[in-house]
Amino acid sequence: MSSKNIYFDNASTTFIDESILESFNKAVKTYPGNPSSIHKYGQESSRIIEKSRDLILSSLCLNNHEVIFTSGATEANNLAIKGFALAHKTRGKHIIVSEVEHPSILETVRELERDFGYRVSYLHINAEGKVSLEELESLIEDDTFLVSIMAVNNEIGSVNNIEDIAKYLKQFPKIAFHVDAVQALGKIDINYKDVDMITITGHKIHGLVGSGCLIKRKGITIEAIINGGGQENNIRSGTYSLPLISTLALAISKAIKNQKTSFNLVKVVSDKLLDELTKMDDLLVINSNTKENPFVVNFSLKKHKASVVVEALSNRNIFVSSISACHSKGEPVSYVVKALKHDDVLAHNTIRVSLDTLNTVEEVKIFIKEFKEIIGGLKQ
Amino acid sequence: MSSKNIYFDNASTTFIDESILESFNKAVKTYPGNPSSIHKYGQESSRIIEKSRDLILSSLCLNNHEVIFTSGATEANNLAIKGFALAHKTRGKHIIVSEVEHPSILETVRELERDFGYRVSYLHINAEGKVSLEELESLIEDDTFLVSIMAVNNEIGSVNNIEDIAKYLKQFPKIAFHVDAVQALGKIDINYKDVDMITITGHKIHGLVGSGCLIKRKGITIEAIINGGGQENNIRSGTYSLPLISTLALAISKAIKNQKTSFNLVKVVSDKLLDELTKMDDLLVINSNTKENPFVVNFSLKKHKASVVVEALSNRNIFVSSISACHSKGEPVSYVVKALKHDDVLAHNTIRVSLDTLNTVEEVKIFIKEFKEIIGGLKQ
Repeated sequence: MSSKNIYFDNASTTFIDESILESFNKAVKTYPGNPSSIHKYGQESSRIIEKSRDLILSSLCLNNHEVIFTSGATEANNLAIKGFALAHKTRGKHIIVSEVEHPSILETVRELERDFGYRVSYLHINAEGKVSLEELESLIEDDTFLVSIMAVNNEIGSVNNIEDIAKYLKQFPKIAFHVDAVQALGKIDINYKDVDMITITGHKIHGLVGSGCLIKRKGITIEAIINGGGQENNIRSGTYSLPLISTLALAISKAIKNQKTSFNLVKVVSDKLLDELTKMDDLLVINSNTKENPFVVNFSLKKHKASVVVEALSNRNIFVSSISACHSKGEPVSYVVKALKHDDVLAHNTIRVSLDTLNTVEEVKIFIKEFKEIIGGLKQ
Repeated sequence: MSSKNIYFDNASTTFIDESILESFNKAVKTYPGNPSSIHKYGQESSRIIEKSRDLILSSLCLNNHEVIFTSGATEANNLAIKGFALAHKTRGKHIIVSEVEHPSILETVRELERDFGYRVSYLHINAEGKVSLEELESLIEDDTFLVSIMAVNNEIGSVNNIEDIAKYLKQFPKIAFHVDAVQALGKIDINYKDVDMITITGHKIHGLVGSGCLIKRKGITIEAIINGGGQENNIRSGTYSLPLISTLALAISKAIKNQKTSFNLVKVVSDKLLDELTKMDDLLVINSNTKENPFVVNFSLKKHKASVVVEALSNRNIFVSSISACHSKGEPVSYVVKALKHDDVLAHNTIRVSLDTLNTVEEVKIFIKEFKEIIGGLKQ
């Protein structure tokens, strides 16, 4: 058994960065006012919030966008999809999303379809887990008004060519392009300048859970899904949480600044893991392309139950995930791996190792040793 | 000028309780996992969340309710109103709310009216700022399915008789009763057992902004306004923020435990303030009944501009509010005082002093001195 905990579930949530937690504490104590109050306390807080917006936009090199703070990515995804749809009721009724989007996109478009008369088309993924521009072209209809494609898939780590898709969609001024960038930020270098709406969350980049934002191009109109005091130009009401907002900005700026270094550090660990897993091709199939994205190594067991292996690993203090934490208590099957491999057994038995700069080659060695022991002790 | 800051804007947001911030930090470090993950880290976190629910319900002596965690009161109010309406489309189209609800209620019912064909009736308030059971009776129609009345008004502090209203509404099984309890919790003793849905937020009770919940009676069905991974029985998706959730529970339990002591402590300060203000009845009208609720002392200036006085006080390090921070950057008039006094001048010139156990009689004396100086220096 590993004497130290080995945390390989960073795509689910990351450990907090100590300096971000410190900054959170400082913000709580230094700016106690409600940023909407007109007295000095309120005004000081309000200034910090504006600075946080600027830091986020400048970190992403976006000059023509603005930030709407939310409680996280799920809310931001709902706001992008539902908020844009409800603000453009007469523009169209057709939405295109990839078939492997996060549940917060898929469930939202399903609601629009079920309750509001919208139509949804789903882009397939190829053997590398990516959508194709050709299929996107073929799906666009006269009343298509919204396309949502994730930058990096949360289960298998596949990377979509967001810049090309954004450039292609520019010829359709009626269509807004939304990108869920949650698993890409701080990992994969993407220029979002031609993207209309971008979702980001704090807790995947060593910030605090409960903080997130939707970034939207100026001029893009969306309707609130949470009404009230009129904060965020009436798009998102609710008392500003200055400590969550300022630390989100800090987490984003740090993640982007460290992106290259993080990639290279994780690549070494990921390469070692892939090396070892590749030797076990009688037991498993690899679902990830770690050259493009070393942060996620997803594989499917051919002959063993993933849930049993994940539990056994957990008992040995090694934490990986089977299917995404976002729906791990519901469906026992990965719809992402199912879309990738078209195979039920493989889709049922996926293991995701998601890495971070805190992980080491030494941890990979322990993981492999324990994994082999567990598999060796299991009936096929 | 006051050498120390005097913070009299506690109804807008309270200072954090040091022990709650410590508990937040401990939670961030001790439970880094995603509570939806199936490994040990996730399971430990999940247990803390269940304990937090239990603590909230037991603190409120509720046996037949359940907790849905949200990002705060605005989201909880939206969820209660929109979520209940959309889950009961065939039950009715008529909603009753008081005319002085928080904007997160008023804007939400307005949206239902504008976009979804609902009808809304507004309960008036009497000279004490309360709604009457008689008017409620007269407004109920065959297809009334939802009533929402705040426990304590955020601007003037008036207290509604929630227990009587809840008892009365029990005879209408088709009608759900929602109470925004944000300004009541930890201040006014109310039994919510006959209330169907209750909104609470953390930052008004020395917890963290960004934490809140909707408590609902078991069996009450509501539809999600944020879709995704299916957390909270599909009613509120999004990664659980264990640190925000556990400290919300702590803040609620502390607020309720300390309720009587807090009331008595604040009453002394409030009485002194009222004493002094009463002597100035040529200059101002008092809008609050501090016997019932000493936490809020709202008054209107007869001859002076409140915004000017609030700013001058702020320059002297005394922080009060003019109209609620929730809409202080929009409308220059208090719709609450307007409903109370039916007078535009008074509604334009309200000052709210909102107190906390941290405030002292000494601070009141300084406030009165500075207030008189400011008024003395102003043209009428």
